[in-house]
Amino acid sequence: MLDCAHIKALQNIVGKENCYDDKAHLLAYCYDATRERYEPEAVVFPRDESEVSAILKYANTHKIPVIPRGAGSGFTGGALPAQGGIILALEKHFNKILEIDEKNLIARVQPAVVNKIFQNEVEKRGLFYPPDPASQDYSTLGGNVSENAGGMRAAKYGITKDFVMALRAVLPNGEIIRAGKKTIKDVAGYNVAGILIASEGTLAVITEITLKLIAKPKFKKSAMGVFPSIESAMNAVYKTMASGITPVAMEFLDNLSIRAVEEKFHKGLPLDAGAILITQVDGDLEVLIEDQIASLESRFRENGCTEFKIAQNAQEEEDLWFARRNASQSINIYGKKKLNEDITVPRSRLPELLARIGEMSEKYGFKIPCFGHTGDGNVHTNVMVGDPSKPLDEAELARGHKCIEEIFKIAVELEGTLSGEHGIGLSKAPFMHLAFSEAEMELFGAIKRAFDPNNILNPHKMGLK
Amino acid sequence: MLDCAHIKALQNIVGKENCYDDKAHLLAYCYDATRERYEPEAVVFPRDESEVSAILKYANTHKIPVIPRGAGSGFTGGALPAQGGIILALEKHFNKILEIDEKNLIARVQPAVVNKIFQNEVEKRGLFYPPDPASQDYSTLGGNVSENAGGMRAAKYGITKDFVMALRAVLPNGEIIRAGKKTIKDVAGYNVAGILIASEGTLAVITEITLKLIAKPKFKKSAMGVFPSIESAMNAVYKTMASGITPVAMEFLDNLSIRAVEEKFHKGLPLDAGAILITQVDGDLEVLIEDQIASLESRFRENGCTEFKIAQNAQEEEDLWFARRNASQSINIYGKKKLNEDITVPRSRLPELLARIGEMSEKYGFKIPCFGHTGDGNVHTNVMVGDPSKPLDEAELARGHKCIEEIFKIAVELEGTLSGEHGIGLSKAPFMHLAFSEAEMELFGAIKRAFDPNNILNPHKMGLK
Repeated sequence: MLDCAHIKALQNIVGKENCYDDKAHLLAYCYDATRERYEPEAVVFPRDESEVSAILKYANTHKIPVIPRGAGSGFTGGALPAQGGIILALEKHFNKILEIDEKNLIARVQPAVVNKIFQNEVEKRGLFYPPDPASQDYSTLGGNVSENAGGMRAAKYGITKDFVMALRAVLPNGEIIRAGKKTIKDVAGYNVAGILIASEGTLAVITEITLKLIAKPKFKKSAMGVFPSIESAMNAVYKTMASGITPVAMEFLDNLSIRAVEEKFHKGLPLDAGAILITQVDGDLEVLIEDQIASLESRFRENGCTEFKIAQNAQEEEDLWFARRNASQSINIYGKKKLNEDITVPRSRLPELLARIGEMSEKYGFKIPCFGHTGDGNVHTNVMVGDPSKPLDEAELARGHKCIEEIFKIAVELEGTLSGEHGIGLSKAPFMHLAFSEAEMELFGAIKRAFDPNNILNPHKMGLK
Repeated sequence: MLDCAHIKALQNIVGKENCYDDKAHLLAYCYDATRERYEPEAVVFPRDESEVSAILKYANTHKIPVIPRGAGSGFTGGALPAQGGIILALEKHFNKILEIDEKNLIARVQPAVVNKIFQNEVEKRGLFYPPDPASQDYSTLGGNVSENAGGMRAAKYGITKDFVMALRAVLPNGEIIRAGKKTIKDVAGYNVAGILIASEGTLAVITEITLKLIAKPKFKKSAMGVFPSIESAMNAVYKTMASGITPVAMEFLDNLSIRAVEEKFHKGLPLDAGAILITQVDGDLEVLIEDQIASLESRFRENGCTEFKIAQNAQEEEDLWFARRNASQSINIYGKKKLNEDITVPRSRLPELLARIGEMSEKYGFKIPCFGHTGDGNVHTNVMVGDPSKPLDEAELARGHKCIEEIFKIAVELEGTLSGEHGIGLSKAPFMHLAFSEAEMELFGAIKRAFDPNNILNPHKMGLK
């Protein structure tokens, strides 16, 4: 536990009503979406940037770990206090949209603004913020930046980093910095904003984010392609994208995922399909939409698509996406514990990736339903361990982790990455050596020390020493 | 001069035919587009990545500066050996396109591939690499990445960093690293590629670049709008872009630039115009092009455009762009020396920026013709010093630099940047304090030391201590 003097010092900075070390608070802030638990020693709610600065300065002097936290919705433990310290909870006082600059198509927000709330606000003005992680209803923009969140629309619009123009942040020594500008071009000084993105809260505490917006496309249309095999669907994905069509999203569900959704929701999905692709196009002219949908159908059919269903109205559109959005919860029927990873490969390697995941399923005897963002090569791979109706067997779980490790190796072999969206945090730290050399890990360590020589900011994450 | 033993050691690494310290070579590699001269002590042409590694390891051990060099076409002295050392010239042996992966719309290139040669190669395959710095005919992709080069098409497609997926690089200690992946999403480890971009060769030597490609748009069309005043043109720029139209380019020439081009080339440009905007749209459907051009004309006319001329064929298209491309050389009639800067502001601040540059022109008595990439807020500002027919007066030149400093201050005041495209190098180093705080400069220094503790790689650049 933190010394009483430390708690008093923190209370002096943020006020008593914004600093807690009672059991209820420590429990409330000990978890994230990994369901792992690590108790902090204090929870503080800074009211402004100067308080963030004062807290960090204090913690740096006394070498107390500080863990920045938005919604705590991360999948890899990024917001967990691995070895105690202070949870710097931004949710209470950093949740304001500061500016929506319609003249320059730019917004400035505080880090704890929820993604979806922000999307709704800009859409009211005819503008559009594309990054849409599955957690968009509760995850915060600060968390999105810290993890470089993706989402379904990345196939056309890119990911969070493609929309971050500038950041304000507080360094571990308490210094406040700005990085980047409200300009499309800016090449003065090192790209500090670029390295803060995806740094998982280990380099600085982000206190303000400047985001690029675009005009909201006037029209959109969704369609579903049914494929006899996963291989034909994966071939369709990369050949369609290579042909120059750029759908907003190109999502897939494999047969296991289709059957799970159907069992739960009875939406009339094709139970015998090897896979389905759900796709959406958008644009400012109806004729453009029609042209893109027609091209998609051609490419799909060339690759074995047996049925191509275009959503004719909002309800049909909603139904199509319902299956995709509910895949993750539906597949829980296949196991007690879901080992959910988000490997990514170049699109042309998708057929091989899925084939080899199939081999892993046979080898280990686990069902491995897959779905995800094939338009950008990002596959959510779910190793389902244990019988849902029985207690979890530890040896079985260990085998599940072994299976995951093999899948990571396959991803790296296919020129892919350990993580397309979720980050490394604690969960994937043991696998960093599969993807990075000793020299690369040492460079990460040197970068960490450049920002945080005392290693107080979110320590023990990303496999950093 | 470098000790004889050092030269021999370098010759042992790259062979005698790839290592020189004769006067002819030292002179040939002492300049760049700034026309400043700094002589190196040796020029080496490594044949492969392992030789780059060996050279850096040797130089690091002996604390000899190493300056990576592509085409030497930079505007801020990035490739100049400020205090001697070894020029690491990549032009001879690092000029191959390694792969154009049509399945994934990705290319891998060596750093000394010339931008335009690369563009041509990918366009032969129906693909497109948008970044088009004015130096595209001779500047290299490695230089483009190191400076984060922009260009005319940035208004729609973004800049170099938006196309870099991965890099291979050699650290100052000789270690070879990879950064990034051939995947759209990759959030494992720090974004090292992100910080190498725009680092001006101060952190690592880039040995291979993986670039994103897109499909080449099937149609394009260009048009010119004539405006009575610079203010009306600048209002048209930001209001057009804010309305959701995304032209490929939105370039402007002010009245001085128009008259200079016309005096030299007699292209029938409107001599009385306050400014012209030259714009281009592209897309995959002709109807889309027509729709965009019509929208552009409406927005332009709403903001005072008196004439809107659409290029009806390739020749007319060429003529329109001729004026823009030849503005830079044409304005030399206004002065002996051109102090050419590339400030950038949020688009809505363009009217105020240009008005205040006009005030500077009156205050200092210099002509300051402006042209450039207004679609992304990037203005090439040219303070023309001295009578072209007389020797340059040093006091006059000093006043020119004073004027530039005031213009930088104005750019920063308007939420802009010292440099949209050219970088800092040596030329803008004295002005870094205008844009960055002490804490920010200290962070840059810490990042530099993390990569290059002995400060051997392109030292004395970017205002780093």
